[in-house]
Amino acid sequence: MKGATVQQFETAKNKLSTLQNDPGNRVKLQIYALFKQATQGPCTTSSPGMLDFVNRAKWDAWKALGSISQVQVLTQAQMSAGAGDFYCSGNDLNNFVLGDGGVEEKARQGAELLRKYVRAYIGFPKPLVAVVNGPAVGISVTLLGLFDLVYASERATFHTPFSQLGQSPEGCSSYTFPSLMGPAKASEMLLFNKKVTAAQACELRLVTEVFPESSFQTEVWTRLKAYAKLPPNSLALSRQLIRSVEKQRLYDVNDLEVECLRGRWVSDECAAAIMSFFQAKAKL
Amino acid sequence: MKGATVQQFETAKNKLSTLQNDPGNRVKLQIYALFKQATQGPCTTSSPGMLDFVNRAKWDAWKALGSISQVQVLTQAQMSAGAGDFYCSGNDLNNFVLGDGGVEEKARQGAELLRKYVRAYIGFPKPLVAVVNGPAVGISVTLLGLFDLVYASERATFHTPFSQLGQSPEGCSSYTFPSLMGPAKASEMLLFNKKVTAAQACELRLVTEVFPESSFQTEVWTRLKAYAKLPPNSLALSRQLIRSVEKQRLYDVNDLEVECLRGRWVSDECAAAIMSFFQAKAKL
Amino acid sequence: MKGATVQQFETAKNKLSTLQNDPGNRVKLQIYALFKQATQGPCTTSSPGMLDFVNRAKWDAWKALGSISQVQVLTQAQMSAGAGDFYCSGNDLNNFVLGDGGVEEKARQGAELLRKYVRAYIGFPKPLVAVVNGPAVGISVTLLGLFDLVYASERATFHTPFSQLGQSPEGCSSYTFPSLMGPAKASEMLLFNKKVTAAQACELRLVTEVFPESSFQTEVWTRLKAYAKLPPNSLALSRQLIRSVEKQRLYDVNDLEVECLRGRWVSDECAAAIMSFFQAKAKL
Repeated sequence: MKGATVQQFETAKNKLSTLQNDPGNRVKLQIYALFKQATQGPCTTSSPGMLDFVNRAKWDAWKALGSISQVQVLTQAQMSAGAGDFYCSGNDLNNFVLGDGGVEEKARQGAELLRKYVRAYIGFPKPLVAVVNGPAVGISVTLLGLFDLVYASERATFHTPFSQLGQSPEGCSSYTFPSLMGPAKASEMLLFNKKVTAAQACELRLVTEVFPESSFQTEVWTRLKAYAKLPPNSLALSRQLIRSVEKQRLYDVNDLEVECLRGRWVSDECAAAIMSFFQAKAKL
Repeated sequence: MKGATVQQFETAKNKLSTLQNDPGNRVKLQIYALFKQATQGPCTTSSPGMLDFVNRAKWDAWKALGSISQVQVLTQAQMSAGAGDFYCSGNDLNNFVLGDGGVEEKARQGAELLRKYVRAYIGFPKPLVAVVNGPAVGISVTLLGLFDLVYASERATFHTPFSQLGQSPEGCSSYTFPSLMGPAKASEMLLFNKKVTAAQACELRLVTEVFPESSFQTEVWTRLKAYAKLPPNSLALSRQLIRSVEKQRLYDVNDLEVECLRGRWVSDECAAAIMSFFQAKAKL
Repeated sequence: MKGATVQQFETAKNKLSTLQNDPGNRVKLQIYALFKQATQGPCTTSSPGMLDFVNRAKWDAWKALGSISQVQVLTQAQMSAGAGDFYCSGNDLNNFVLGDGGVEEKARQGAELLRKYVRAYIGFPKPLVAVVNGPAVGISVTLLGLFDLVYASERATFHTPFSQLGQSPEGCSSYTFPSLMGPAKASEMLLFNKKVTAAQACELRLVTEVFPESSFQTEVWTRLKAYAKLPPNSLALSRQLIRSVEKQRLYDVNDLEVECLRGRWVSDECAAAIMSFFQAKAKL
């Protein structure tokens, strides 16, 4: 079984909201895993059942977007899922057992996986196109600074509540966000947990263009079809040229961010922040 | 004779639109030269005839803009013309003969000329002011990232169709455009051939201020007259200070862009893209 | 006595407006000191008298803003005052006597003080929050590029008239302003003395958010109270992470700016520009 059930999640949440004493590191890491499960959805974006025809068609349509050779298209769900190896590691509570020094080791492994995942985006050879049609949270937002085009439906929102959870920015956002929008705007998102709308994200340069929900897919398709006629080598080379100046800096930023996060994960402040988040939720 | 005649151009275009087989590198380079001639106008922005009084007065007025010592003023026509040594090299079809390995050699020479031309902007000691009052294409757009002030009339448009022609960005735009507007907006222009209006270019930080066509010259003059009263050393030093941090990086970016373009010019993809562009035009 | 009296200032200004010949370096430096006194207010932002209850309450309220541990809050008055060691040095005319080579030495000392003052902002460990509720001039504007949040009332204005006074940018603005808003907008402020409104500064990324004067304090307090609940270590670490990439570059920019200014202060052009500024004022 991969992924915790709703029941397991509720049980854990209820238990947490009545906790008086520090539950210890082992439990903290379980809480963390559960939190990721709860806010980012299941690790595998498996396709809807074959009998669910409407959704099936939609899914296939979106998957097909990624099939042109000029660019690589990714949805926010795919970005979160791709990070799942790391973010969802160990979220099967039945198998979740830590040995001595287990938290540090888990954090080290998680950091290394995250590092490699973000490196794959930095070094990607073709233009990257993100398609965001709903609430995007965490790494599916921070990675957008590494994309070449970001199309969003008006329903999309962008949220990176790092400090609320005692954590720190990843996905190179500690560098790309201030570059895009200046520190005075980036801090609102990265330090002070501001959730922004699609229109705001567009003004902040995080998003290329925003479309009404009703015409979103059509508009994106029209553009991708046009791009499919462009010379692929010229596109890839130009993309690499544009990224070449910042490439080494982005690798360095990624290393630094990951090291900072690894430290956060084993800190008491981070564990306390996550517990406090759940306790607040449980009181609603 | 410098510059191809309209008749020569039409003949070549018609011939191209009926081509079935690859015409070979020699012809490809001629096509390229013609394309530049067609989209960027003649190499020398010679003054209108002495009898054409109205235009003569206008021309002298604009030329006079460049005569204050505090700043250097350039129009988009002057920028294109200045690049003419390179971009229009060899566009006299009568004299256009290539020896063995001629395409590679021509591309190498062209790249070196382009490199030097852009370097002149990077290292310019005084504040640079661009005045754009019509459609700007190619290098007269990309160079704007190296200017200190860019005044545009509402009629101005900005277009850099690199990938459409199988080419890649120049004028340091692969670095300055993402810095100005973020990759999610810069890619639309540099990779996906989006033409932007003056108002859009202003929002993207490429343009300082946009004026109605009717008051454009007056507004620009008012500003330049005020600048002419400022301490010239203070201005020049401050300009050099502002540029000093990025200067070496810009030289490096220029070298990289030019090398990338040199490779593009001798590629089959580039030649095919230019031919396809002409064939599409010929079908209209 | 610290700070020149209004009478002393008027006397000096009147004397200047009738000057025909170069008054010599000694007088020039006095003029400079007076200018700073006149445009940036007294060096010490001393509290209002204890009997002035309304203003007293307001003052205490604003001072209290700085007392949460998560962030450091500063007003534009505090920023100017903090720079006072440098900017107001020697503005007591009675004690203002220079020995041989005095101007160069004063300029050297002033430059060193400025260098250290700006370094303190670059290396500050906690998020910096600026609160601007009126006209901000000079260093209280340029330093904003080093802040994490900038809240402004609609009454705020932002002005950096460096070239008008024959000087050059400081506070790392020669780097932060072009990064924030692009050279085509930064030059208007840093080179060509454009004063911008709070709304414009917000669009230029210099300001995070603008509030009506009537609700300004309440809005800022609401935000600061929320920030006071966030994990302080997470905030500080994230802030340092965000700044780490640019830190060394900012130190270098600061050194360069200060060296450039030191040269300006002993230049005839700078002295002439300041005199011309006063003579223009005296004619009103």
